[in-house]
Amino acid sequence: MSQRIWNVYLSGEIHSDWRTRIAEGVAAAGLPVRLDAPVCVHADSDDCGALILGAEEKPFWHDRKGAEMNAIRTRTLIAEADVVVVRFGDKYRQWNAAFDAGTAAALGKAMITLHGPELDHALKEVDAAALAVCATPEQVVQTLAYVIRGELPGRAGRQAAE
Amino acid sequence: MSQRIWNVYLSGEIHSDWRTRIAEGVAAAGLPVRLDAPVCVHADSDDCGALILGAEEKPFWHDRKGAEMNAIRTRTLIAEADVVVVRFGDKYRQWNAAFDAGTAAALGKAMITLHGPELDHALKEVDAAALAVCATPEQVVQTLAYVIRGELPGRAGRQAAE
Amino acid sequence: MSQRIWNVYLSGEIHSDWRTRIAEGVAAAGLPVRLDAPVCVHADSDDCGALILGAEEKPFWHDRKGAEMNAIRTRTLIAEADVVVVRFGDKYRQWNAAFDAGTAAALGKAMITLHGPELDHALKEVDAAALAVCATPEQVVQTLAYVIRGELPGRAGRQAAE
Amino acid sequence: MSQRIWNVYLSGEIHSDWRTRIAEGVAAAGLPVRLDAPVCVHADSDDCGALILGAEEKPFWHDRKGAEMNAIRTRTLIAEADVVVVRFGDKYRQWNAAFDAGTAAALGKAMITLHGPELDHALKEVDAAALAVCATPEQVVQTLAYVIRGELPGRAGRQAAE
Amino acid sequence: MSQRIWNVYLSGEIHSDWRTRIAEGVAAAGLPVRLDAPVCVHADSDDCGALILGAEEKPFWHDRKGAEMNAIRTRTLIAEADVVVVRFGDKYRQWNAAFDAGTAAALGKAMITLHGPELDHALKEVDAAALAVCATPEQVVQTLAYVIRGELPGRAGRQAAE
Amino acid sequence: MSQRIWNVYLSGEIHSDWRTRIAEGVAAAGLPVRLDAPVCVHADSDDCGALILGAEEKPFWHDRKGAEMNAIRTRTLIAEADVVVVRFGDKYRQWNAAFDAGTAAALGKAMITLHGPELDHALKEVDAAALAVCATPEQVVQTLAYVIRGELPGRAGRQAAE
Amino acid sequence: MSQRIWNVYLSGEIHSDWRTRIAEGVAAAGLPVRLDAPVCVHADSDDCGALILGAEEKPFWHDRKGAEMNAIRTRTLIAEADVVVVRFGDKYRQWNAAFDAGTAAALGKAMITLHGPELDHALKEVDAAALAVCATPEQVVQTLAYVIRGELPGRAGRQAAE
Amino acid sequence: MSQRIWNVYLSGEIHSDWRTRIAEGVAAAGLPVRLDAPVCVHADSDDCGALILGAEEKPFWHDRKGAEMNAIRTRTLIAEADVVVVRFGDKYRQWNAAFDAGTAAALGKAMITLHGPELDHALKEVDAAALAVCATPEQVVQTLAYVIRGELPGRAGRQAAE
Repeated sequence: MSQRIWNVYLSGEIHSDWRTRIAEGVAAAGLPVRLDAPVCVHADSDDCGALILGAEEKPFWHDRKGAEMNAIRTRTLIAEADVVVVRFGDKYRQWNAAFDAGTAAALGKAMITLHGPELDHALKEVDAAALAVCATPEQVVQTLAYVIRGELPGRAGRQAAE
Repeated sequence: MSQRIWNVYLSGEIHSDWRTRIAEGVAAAGLPVRLDAPVCVHADSDDCGALILGAEEKPFWHDRKGAEMNAIRTRTLIAEADVVVVRFGDKYRQWNAAFDAGTAAALGKAMITLHGPELDHALKEVDAAALAVCATPEQVVQTLAYVIRGELPGRAGRQAAE
Repeated sequence: MSQRIWNVYLSGEIHSDWRTRIAEGVAAAGLPVRLDAPVCVHADSDDCGALILGAEEKPFWHDRKGAEMNAIRTRTLIAEADVVVVRFGDKYRQWNAAFDAGTAAALGKAMITLHGPELDHALKEVDAAALAVCATPEQVVQTLAYVIRGELPGRAGRQAAE
Repeated sequence: MSQRIWNVYLSGEIHSDWRTRIAEGVAAAGLPVRLDAPVCVHADSDDCGALILGAEEKPFWHDRKGAEMNAIRTRTLIAEADVVVVRFGDKYRQWNAAFDAGTAAALGKAMITLHGPELDHALKEVDAAALAVCATPEQVVQTLAYVIRGELPGRAGRQAAE
Repeated sequence: MSQRIWNVYLSGEIHSDWRTRIAEGVAAAGLPVRLDAPVCVHADSDDCGALILGAEEKPFWHDRKGAEMNAIRTRTLIAEADVVVVRFGDKYRQWNAAFDAGTAAALGKAMITLHGPELDHALKEVDAAALAVCATPEQVVQTLAYVIRGELPGRAGRQAAE
Repeated sequence: MSQRIWNVYLSGEIHSDWRTRIAEGVAAAGLPVRLDAPVCVHADSDDCGALILGAEEKPFWHDRKGAEMNAIRTRTLIAEADVVVVRFGDKYRQWNAAFDAGTAAALGKAMITLHGPELDHALKEVDAAALAVCATPEQVVQTLAYVIRGELPGRAGRQAAE
Repeated sequence: MSQRIWNVYLSGEIHSDWRTRIAEGVAAAGLPVRLDAPVCVHADSDDCGALILGAEEKPFWHDRKGAEMNAIRTRTLIAEADVVVVRFGDKYRQWNAAFDAGTAAALGKAMITLHGPELDHALKEVDAAALAVCATPEQVVQTLAYVIRGELPGRAGRQAAE
Repeated sequence: MSQRIWNVYLSGEIHSDWRTRIAEGVAAAGLPVRLDAPVCVHADSDDCGALILGAEEKPFWHDRKGAEMNAIRTRTLIAEADVVVVRFGDKYRQWNAAFDAGTAAALGKAMITLHGPELDHALKEVDAAALAVCATPEQVVQTLAYVIRGELPGRAGRQAAE
């Protein structure tokens, strides 16, 4: 019988390599995971609406067209995800990350947050809705390996439920 | 890992070639999309109920039988769609297109409308529930290419999330 | 024990006196009904967004602001309605009426359509999702009187379920 | 028949007087609105969990206890709201406001955002899920007056749907 | 604090006095219950659609109009009920009663069936979805008295949760 | 791209060959349909619970055990179906068929009823919730062929949406 | 405007006076709370089904009848609750309490658990789904006072959101 | 057409070999079943959170981290299951098993309980929400064989619905 594929959506910060590190960790472990994400090329996600549908003079409507076009992708993939990982970095306001987190929580998705401890206090409401609070991408990979296969770092025991 | 298939339902006007143009654009771009649509042979969609279930003297019940039989198809496919494209032409009243749009919106589907700017005012409530308002089938294809693959016309950058 | 109040939302055409006739009929019959409706002053419903939130140069965004502001009202009241009456007249395209009908149907609301027989064919998909197709406001009132109290025109029998 | 009460939840920034201005505006207009909000005494909302359930050495768990206790209130009231107003100020990260916005959007609530234009770009995803983007508390009150009663500033026409 | 009102919908057979006996029992016990029911005048429930909306030559459409008009009432009241009582007599096919039972079960309503033991085998699927199978209207009243107030026939103990 | 498989659940009467005729018609037409059904060996569906879980002296509990065990199958497959066909014959009470119909309707499934015209009046409430009322298994197959492929008996036109 | 009433369901252990202590605390604080609970007379909740619907020889079916009758009450009140408090004592297995907790969590209710620290490990899965873990009934009352009114023991600040 | 795969989640007691016996029985019968389960290595399921996310001094938070990490797995797989089997042994409190049962029931899953008759009284509320109460793993396998294929021990008849 073919194994279950876990859909994991990677939301949030787009300026560091955390998605790549999770993807490499998942591949190295051979986990049955499909990773999804928003469009991560900043300029493209800003301009997509205006480029395809027509330019706007006002930045407000330029932004609106782009945000709505991106929402076609993000809403669909979050709604389909088993696990939503939300990453917060130390720069920018990242309200869209927190917005995705609220969406995921309201839909009853299993949520994992990923951020340094210096953001703990500011993110306490978001973390309270998460099932794991990770500080590194490697912890996210280890969490997935345990959740999917029961594998723990440094433990021999594993269960056969994959 | 096999790529995600996006289900796109094409609702609305059946007298121009817009569905063909979207299908050709999707095929040319190699997008992983399954296109669905209502039965688009006008006479068949009018007469299906009476032809199969028995003729009616009153046009009202002739229509009712046909509309309900078509609803088996349309409700099932709209409920399953990731994206619903609703096309309005400049002829006919097309209340079924607007009805499908209301259905899609209430189900939380990502909706794209497709119509010329001369219909903007009359369609403002429908457009307000859409995530993209396109004027040409090519814009619909470009929107799908961006949403699914992050591809933008004239931009080199692309992301690898397919 | 206080009687149940039925919430009835009156959607659609705003240029004839059909809402008034239903309101008068409901009042004359003493039915326990709360009637809701969109804002029916045409210019106000067009301009509300721009008047309150700021003017727009492009008609498209002027319309968008207004349509979204009206949606705060209409979505809330339709979601709360027991019965949604949707009226189609012989003028204008009235896509927002068909859009409301699709919303009501997808939410599982009991829907009543109200239109002349000359629109039967064009409205067959919408009528197929309705539980009563009325041609006059008086029929809507009679339907409500029967549904709520079991009263029928010209019949003595009535039940006591109010 | 008694009038409908609209439940409006006021989420977000707690350091300026915007809630008071909305409350005063609503009262001055005599709108049938019940205003709800999170606990807005900053120290209390931080410490509630530890004060009632027992102190924690680690700030992380101090925060967790508080955030979860506040969630009893906020989740209940947001789930019951007709309209959710989310305010963003120019200080602090306010991820909980964006999280509430994501919750409201996923639950299909009518959402109004409230912030200055300097935050437009950073909030574009949140605004795209809102039905009105206001810059002042007075605009929120005017929006409510229009939505509930059809009243517009400087217009004589009003409808009787309250 | 005012006591909770329990909404109880009485579905099914309309040729015996079981609804009256439940109503009298509920009144005698002073239970805080609102009883709802379909229109129980047989001829009226058959003819309502044709009488209000216009006569039909074919019995099939005469029936359809009536059944849909009755559905406005029954669907609304079943959807709102806390408890649905479904009565089966020994005459007629009563498929609408079993249909209501399936509706109630799918909506997660607490269901009570009411029928003599000679129907046990034929009703086994329906009974398996019920939380109480009563043989007399008096048992229904006793069930409601226990469920709402903890009162049991011949037992002194009662709890104060009303 | 692989074609969509339609799940069709065949509920109701188990004493005639209607399921076989539909299966043969579907196979002959090459329709992409998966047919599901309850366990149709009468004695087995009566005795399954007692045979596996232990005998009961009282027929009531013998029936209960069987009905609940069958419900594991029927509820799962109805919940997953795109189309539910409900067949009523002229013998037996078949309350479970009407119960399944109520379940299917409440879940928003596309429903097709199948029965002779002599049952029209008794089944009017069930038929009113159906999207097609067929008198023969062949009409069910034709309905599926039209719904899935747009094929109509005696019409050349067909659309390519499979 | 009348204040909001909070519905709080008190599930679990029935052998100590915790419900009384919460009721007294809520009354002393004047909180706008309606407290609901299962029938707490042990013998009555065991025997209700057999007493009303008829005796059973087998204890298994005696229990089944009682458990299903109690479920009419408990499912209805849990589904309606804003907050579900689940109490675990140090005697008996109390699987029904944990079952109620699972129900409450799956329905998205705000849950408070109430138990001594010696049960922390055994209840870790249940506590992980709760928003507050209390050791005394007084802590439950304080939690409600804070959640509803923003009142904290020993703090002067209070907000006006009741 | 490929056969349907049934997802069966095995919740509860982890100290006996019941899962293995079900797996072997399912394999021997060649049933199209995917079996899922929680991580069943006791120490791993206790320590997973602390091992991956960092150690805690207080056992309460050590437990919390582990319980939440396990919930990523269990909630996802229960939500996806067609059938949830919940096993109760005679040792330990097993509140998490009853919690899973409440979750499964609230989500409308088909539930099978598995326990010896000495636990019947203590589990009466849980059993009342189940569709089969088994005493041995072999009965679970027989139930699955009947539900999926209509096979009964000692009966020749079988239906062809797989």
